[in-house]
Amino acid sequence: MTTVRIVGIGCHPGQLTLEAREAIAGCDYVIAADKGPDDPLLALRRGICADLGVELVAVQDPPRDRDPGLGGADYDGAVLDWHDARAAAYGSLLDRRPGRVGFLVWGDPAFYDSTIRVVDRLGVPYDVLPGVSALSLLAARHRVVLHEVGRPVLVTTGRRLADEVAAGHDNLVVMLDGRLQATLLDGDWDIWWAANLGSPGQELVAGRLADVVDAIRAARERARDADGWVMDTYLLRRNSQS
Amino acid sequence: MTTVRIVGIGCHPGQLTLEAREAIAGCDYVIAADKGPDDPLLALRRGICADLGVELVAVQDPPRDRDPGLGGADYDGAVLDWHDARAAAYGSLLDRRPGRVGFLVWGDPAFYDSTIRVVDRLGVPYDVLPGVSALSLLAARHRVVLHEVGRPVLVTTGRRLADEVAAGHDNLVVMLDGRLQATLLDGDWDIWWAANLGSPGQELVAGRLADVVDAIRAARERARDADGWVMDTYLLRRNSQS
Ligand SMILES: C[S@@+](CC[C@H](N)C(=O)[O-])C[C@H]1O[C@@H](n2cnc3c(N)ncnc32)[C@H](O)[C@@H]1O
Ligand SMILES: C[S@@+](CC[C@H](N)C(=O)[O-])C[C@H]1O[C@@H](n2cnc3c(N)ncnc32)[C@H](O)[C@@H]1O
Repeated sequence: MTTVRIVGIGCHPGQLTLEAREAIAGCDYVIAADKGPDDPLLALRRGICADLGVELVAVQDPPRDRDPGLGGADYDGAVLDWHDARAAAYGSLLDRRPGRVGFLVWGDPAFYDSTIRVVDRLGVPYDVLPGVSALSLLAARHRVVLHEVGRPVLVTTGRRLADEVAAGHDNLVVMLDGRLQATLLDGDWDIWWAANLGSPGQELVAGRLADVVDAIRAARERARDADGWVMDTYLLRRNSQS
Repeated sequence: MTTVRIVGIGCHPGQLTLEAREAIAGCDYVIAADKGPDDPLLALRRGICADLGVELVAVQDPPRDRDPGLGGADYDGAVLDWHDARAAAYGSLLDRRPGRVGFLVWGDPAFYDSTIRVVDRLGVPYDVLPGVSALSLLAARHRVVLHEVGRPVLVTTGRRLADEVAAGHDNLVVMLDGRLQATLLDGDWDIWWAANLGSPGQELVAGRLADVVDAIRAARERARDADGWVMDTYLLRRNSQS
């Protein structure tokens, strides 16, 4: 009998919740996608498992057509194929090694993560524990609420940003944006930007977008140099004072 | 010398992160708003502080004009007055008792919470630690991602829901909705609804909105009976199959 727990681990080990620690410690083993020899998130998962005394089984990630990018024409089909390939790899492991199996999800499984969709294909009982998302950590480090009082916030991707702004959005959190799409926007915006939140190379920049673009680009390179990888996210709010 | 830590505590004690526990344990005392004799969130904070051996000082919450509701004409002004009144109450306590002071925020301080804005008025050094938001827990309990692959999600309030949908939104998380505004919408929607997430009275209902409205209303009453209070939130997605 196999059961799966999908566990959000936040953005650094101090962000593990008590229930997440207990869930991981209670697993027979943890499956982690292995995206290559230098996968930083794999190393972090290894550290957590070693700390909690649980075996980590790395499964080589199926190759993914990265080129279409989010929202490309064949994107949805490519994602489904890739979910199927991942599910097949995990399924055959579960067949060989039934038991209590954990998946550790960076941040929170509810945002831009495929683990729930992949595990759902496996046909085994599973549950999900939430974690602290990068967007919560972004807000905390900048000491901001993600919206004005009683107002909304749109969580979206770099690829969609221009369209969302064209549709009238003026308060957005952007994830999955390797190219700082905000720089392509017209108008007067405030930005609260961060890279590598929770890691030694963490960088924060806030200010009027036009004034801080160069500082962000420089900080992004510093984060990459420090950690060997870079992930960034930002809150963008139209400046209504102007 | 006074320093303040604003700590997100998630939606039940098992959702405290390691860093949140350490931050609370390192405080001289914790300030908690007291909204009346039966305030359930005050009792929960008391339990956490007792567990971590930290004194909790309850400060009576200034009266708030609840009637305008979110988005009402005088709402912004009423909120600012109320923030000022809270800041004054906390400030005079900090003057009497300087030290390392904690504020425990339900869920995550980044969503629909005034603590950052109030503490910012106090003029003392402070930092913020993120927590697991009710919206992350909603997604986890229903085992869903809050958006389709690569798509956005709008986080908004019950009061704004009808306007957001009129503006074309078809994937929304709704908070601060005591009246299930979703029932007023036209069209075919799927809903993932939850009340009292993380509490003994927790209730979950998912399905086609039109089919589950009665089940939600009944579950809402059960949650209130079980816990003596009710808070609910939901993910709403337009059904594209129809
Ligand atoms: C595939 S998504 C995963 C999000 C994750 N499930 C979460 O809740 O944070 C990856 C994106 O999240 C954001 N991100 C994740 N971790 C981050 C970090 N430590 N610092 C900054 N951004 C981060 C970046 O926008 C990145 O492109
Ligand atoms: C003032 S806001 C605070 C949100 C909080 N900062 C968070 O991150 O979850 C209160 C609203 O959050 C949602 N909420 C908070 N806790 C909840 C729970 N345990 N179950 C369901 N909804 C909850 C409800 O929509 C409620 O009206």
